[in-house]
Amino acid sequence: MTERLRVGQAGLGYWGRNLARNFDDLTDLRWLCDASEERRAEFAERYTDARVTGDFDELLAADDVDAVVIATPVPTHYPLARAALAAGKHVFVEKPPAMQVAEMEELIGLAESRGLVLMPGHLLLYHPAVQKLKELIDAGELGEVLCVYGNRQNLGIVRTNENALWSLGVHDLSVVLYLLDEDPEIATANGRDFLTPGVEDVVFCYLRFPSGKIAHMHLSWLDPHKMRKITVVGREKMVVFDDMELERKVTIYEKGPWQPTETYGEWQTQTGDIFSPKISSDEPLRLECRHFLSLVAGEGDRLKVAHDGLAVVRVLEQLQASLVTAPA
Amino acid sequence: MTERLRVGQAGLGYWGRNLARNFDDLTDLRWLCDASEERRAEFAERYTDARVTGDFDELLAADDVDAVVIATPVPTHYPLARAALAAGKHVFVEKPPAMQVAEMEELIGLAESRGLVLMPGHLLLYHPAVQKLKELIDAGELGEVLCVYGNRQNLGIVRTNENALWSLGVHDLSVVLYLLDEDPEIATANGRDFLTPGVEDVVFCYLRFPSGKIAHMHLSWLDPHKMRKITVVGREKMVVFDDMELERKVTIYEKGPWQPTETYGEWQTQTGDIFSPKISSDEPLRLECRHFLSLVAGEGDRLKVAHDGLAVVRVLEQLQASLVTAPA
Amino acid sequence: MTERLRVGQAGLGYWGRNLARNFDDLTDLRWLCDASEERRAEFAERYTDARVTGDFDELLAADDVDAVVIATPVPTHYPLARAALAAGKHVFVEKPPAMQVAEMEELIGLAESRGLVLMPGHLLLYHPAVQKLKELIDAGELGEVLCVYGNRQNLGIVRTNENALWSLGVHDLSVVLYLLDEDPEIATANGRDFLTPGVEDVVFCYLRFPSGKIAHMHLSWLDPHKMRKITVVGREKMVVFDDMELERKVTIYEKGPWQPTETYGEWQTQTGDIFSPKISSDEPLRLECRHFLSLVAGEGDRLKVAHDGLAVVRVLEQLQASLVTAPA
Amino acid sequence: MTERLRVGQAGLGYWGRNLARNFDDLTDLRWLCDASEERRAEFAERYTDARVTGDFDELLAADDVDAVVIATPVPTHYPLARAALAAGKHVFVEKPPAMQVAEMEELIGLAESRGLVLMPGHLLLYHPAVQKLKELIDAGELGEVLCVYGNRQNLGIVRTNENALWSLGVHDLSVVLYLLDEDPEIATANGRDFLTPGVEDVVFCYLRFPSGKIAHMHLSWLDPHKMRKITVVGREKMVVFDDMELERKVTIYEKGPWQPTETYGEWQTQTGDIFSPKISSDEPLRLECRHFLSLVAGEGDRLKVAHDGLAVVRVLEQLQASLVTAPA
Repeated sequence: MTERLRVGQAGLGYWGRNLARNFDDLTDLRWLCDASEERRAEFAERYTDARVTGDFDELLAADDVDAVVIATPVPTHYPLARAALAAGKHVFVEKPPAMQVAEMEELIGLAESRGLVLMPGHLLLYHPAVQKLKELIDAGELGEVLCVYGNRQNLGIVRTNENALWSLGVHDLSVVLYLLDEDPEIATANGRDFLTPGVEDVVFCYLRFPSGKIAHMHLSWLDPHKMRKITVVGREKMVVFDDMELERKVTIYEKGPWQPTETYGEWQTQTGDIFSPKISSDEPLRLECRHFLSLVAGEGDRLKVAHDGLAVVRVLEQLQASLVTAPA
Repeated sequence: MTERLRVGQAGLGYWGRNLARNFDDLTDLRWLCDASEERRAEFAERYTDARVTGDFDELLAADDVDAVVIATPVPTHYPLARAALAAGKHVFVEKPPAMQVAEMEELIGLAESRGLVLMPGHLLLYHPAVQKLKELIDAGELGEVLCVYGNRQNLGIVRTNENALWSLGVHDLSVVLYLLDEDPEIATANGRDFLTPGVEDVVFCYLRFPSGKIAHMHLSWLDPHKMRKITVVGREKMVVFDDMELERKVTIYEKGPWQPTETYGEWQTQTGDIFSPKISSDEPLRLECRHFLSLVAGEGDRLKVAHDGLAVVRVLEQLQASLVTAPA
Repeated sequence: MTERLRVGQAGLGYWGRNLARNFDDLTDLRWLCDASEERRAEFAERYTDARVTGDFDELLAADDVDAVVIATPVPTHYPLARAALAAGKHVFVEKPPAMQVAEMEELIGLAESRGLVLMPGHLLLYHPAVQKLKELIDAGELGEVLCVYGNRQNLGIVRTNENALWSLGVHDLSVVLYLLDEDPEIATANGRDFLTPGVEDVVFCYLRFPSGKIAHMHLSWLDPHKMRKITVVGREKMVVFDDMELERKVTIYEKGPWQPTETYGEWQTQTGDIFSPKISSDEPLRLECRHFLSLVAGEGDRLKVAHDGLAVVRVLEQLQASLVTAPA
Repeated sequence: MTERLRVGQAGLGYWGRNLARNFDDLTDLRWLCDASEERRAEFAERYTDARVTGDFDELLAADDVDAVVIATPVPTHYPLARAALAAGKHVFVEKPPAMQVAEMEELIGLAESRGLVLMPGHLLLYHPAVQKLKELIDAGELGEVLCVYGNRQNLGIVRTNENALWSLGVHDLSVVLYLLDEDPEIATANGRDFLTPGVEDVVFCYLRFPSGKIAHMHLSWLDPHKMRKITVVGREKMVVFDDMELERKVTIYEKGPWQPTETYGEWQTQTGDIFSPKISSDEPLRLECRHFLSLVAGEGDRLKVAHDGLAVVRVLEQLQASLVTAPA
């Protein structure tokens, strides 16, 4: 008989709520920690089997916690994750686990040396539509992939302590790196801070990979259109994952660049079949939580998720540097 | 009584066809010139009052030509325009009139010294929807303009001798400079040549202006979506010109960035009224040809169009340089 | 100080859940009644101040119940509402309160003779978008209203005991009668029962009003498109309420039928401005529950809601009769 | 060697222009006839090999005319077609060839007795998208077909001498009858004449077929949305032909009615794959003209097109009768 993992969760805000619901459904949610007394009271009422605390150290000290889930504000991710790993706990930490490569490397070192799982919460990777993109690419359905670009515009609240690159771009970037399975040789960003000085709310990123592939991200809180879309341009087919669609999450276009047109004119571009395969409506967060549990249970490559997370932080750091040093 | 301008046109291809139709309707189309005998024959049949030649010099030498319309391939624009100005003719020349700033300056010098009109064919500036954008901006309807971006994707034929920047980007750039009425202090581009070596088919451009405004262009022949769209983000309202729409060419969103949202969550962004004013269906080309005739007739500022065209060439040159020198 | 109304609710299914939440927020939810022990247990845990029973008579006999909310299956609406009115309780009953005019009239008679509120739950009437339609019509903004039509397709679960007319059409019909404020002189329906014999799953309804206005409803569970849309065609403007839209719930088209077109051709139809006013995102159910409370509190015309509900049942009865008697 | 059919065409209006262009391309356009001197002059200039007349009898009397194309106003179709058949000419006549069954039967009688082709111009039947629908249905791809419905709204000019049923409905009806290959046992219409007394501008039609299938048409000149769409609901799949789409003319939904949903709620309806096959962009009119030529050349069943046209007129006549006799 398998023992159920005993989880302690820090951070009970909007997203923490979803994590707690899932871990409570899937395993044994033992401890809940948050600085807000009001939230603690609310969660205590809902999760009557869990203990509640305002002190993260108390949670770490508890001997009935095997893994720690961290859903606190971004700047606290790194110190809390470090403390949890140091205390011998497996760690699931919301993205990004750290804002510097050095910190992320330190966390990975800790996890590896102690044989612990360190999993950053790159939710989109568990979205069945992203899995479909990956499948299509790996099966060669699109032909050679040339370009991937993401649009993440007019979504979520405008953060004042985190710019659009870190808050929005982390989503697309994790997907781009996952799909292309390559580290960029060029990563450059431009953008501006219109609302909060020093916090870019509109950012454009360009990546170039050793294979010659390119990627682009348009990230913005200031936009008339709500967009969360990833487009993959292959030499033979193109595919779009549009998360604002209800029934056509993924659409594959038989539209290759080789088609000549005899006459000038914008209507001449040829299109073949257009296909939207059924995408499972499984909740990505549920799949993500399950993946964490299976890694802790010893299934799969427990180092991969941490290293993939490191790659994301590395590129974010490069993009951020180019953004900051761009001549004003 | 006004005398009708006598026009000679060089270049009778796809676009030349439209120009000839308009100038024939609006004024006196006297000469038609093209290297192709077949096209000359076709046009001779249609425009029975015009003389037809394969020799541009013959057209220039004719004493019944007041103005020359140039709709030949891009690389020939500069030498033909120069010859026409040197021959004392007013010149309407398709965009871009030259591919180097120095050439464009030479053309302007010639035009000014002889008191001739030199008008580049920046068609979009005559689109009633672009006029509406300009009106909204100048009337302060959008509040401070923060960002303008263009999407020109999957349109027209993929050129093999002209990259997406020069072929597609020239449209958006002319509009961006017209709307913002400012020269950028930064102009940088990235992109790749997937189909024809050395001819970029996917290009991303970023501009930053002294006022702090920014602009971006996504130019691509390789895309699943046909797009020709310009978005203006103001601090109080946002407006989109979508030329693929039939009835909503321009849409104004009462959607400002200042709106706080109390809770995290992507559905919280607040939107006010959304408005699509009726846009005149006047043919932009007709309006453009009329503008040329009125400039020649002495109305308006005959230097402005040439200088605006120079500004476009200057930025294209900068963008091209950054594109070429981008580390591979 | 106002006393809070004490409510007892019968029916704790999907929709009952929403009603309970609202009445608990807005007033004093005292009793909960459902045939399912499992549901009773679930609600008892959530609403710890309420008493729970499986016996509707026990609820009626309780002396701490001022009003009864009925959210049970449709066929039970009439007997439960009658019993509640007979017991001297105000009644909020989900739509339709009865499936025959005679029954509805009996309920109204009971309510009137005892001075009680009888409010059918015509939710859409409380939707801010429907309020906007009513405002536009009453203000004469659309000119003379000519035609109203509803599309309610591919929505909800396919019922086996209630046809599309009663299950879907009741929504549109309540809105049509509310907007036009007139009883139809002709009400005729056609349709078929493809899935469950005797239960029409596709129904088309046509209404003609004494003023000459007409209305149509396309009701179907078998459709590729999810639609819930109401269109009002006025002589001067047309307006659409599309409940599948996120940001353009209501769109007003300056598009009148008087516009002549000079040439044949489908693209010639002229359109003026298109406008989507901001629609409040207030929850219609919250507004509906509040309306019930205010009627009980003595505000407004407490007879009107019952009589409006009667008009809906009357037309449904006519439509049903024409549907059944249509020659096979 | 095949001789080219010698065609005389009567009616040189908007649509006649397209017919003339096609017949001139495909065969020998010998005569052109129109009441308007201006149009005759215009066509004479374009089709220099054709003779031009204002007198239909002169055209009929010419011995170099094998077939007559009739594109005159609807009320003249029947007398002109009769005269042409009587004169021994094959006839292509725009839809509807006659407004009464008796007249259509007379035309067919004439054509059959003389061995002539009588082809009504039901253009949509030659649309590659309609061919695709027919293919899907006949191959059993959709399962049992349950319902077909057409939306033809806000298109074309509002006629003053022809109501929406005859002007718009004739299109959908020809397709419905073609797809289902059955004559309806019930055909009933409702509608109103808002603009021109006696000429219905909004019409709803319901058809029921012996097999139990049903069809519906929503025809209107007064509508905010331009629609020309035909939807086929099958028991296993549903398919939409939307002629306003550029790239998705036909879309097939794997969406059958049998799917149960466990919980109430409109978002539960399950959808499978969605597929838009490439539809040939061949011009339907070109295909239609070719079909006429091939029938005259002796290929295919030359009686079928006339009888199919008769079926359309028969149902239009029934619908019209129910429309007129509907109690006001």
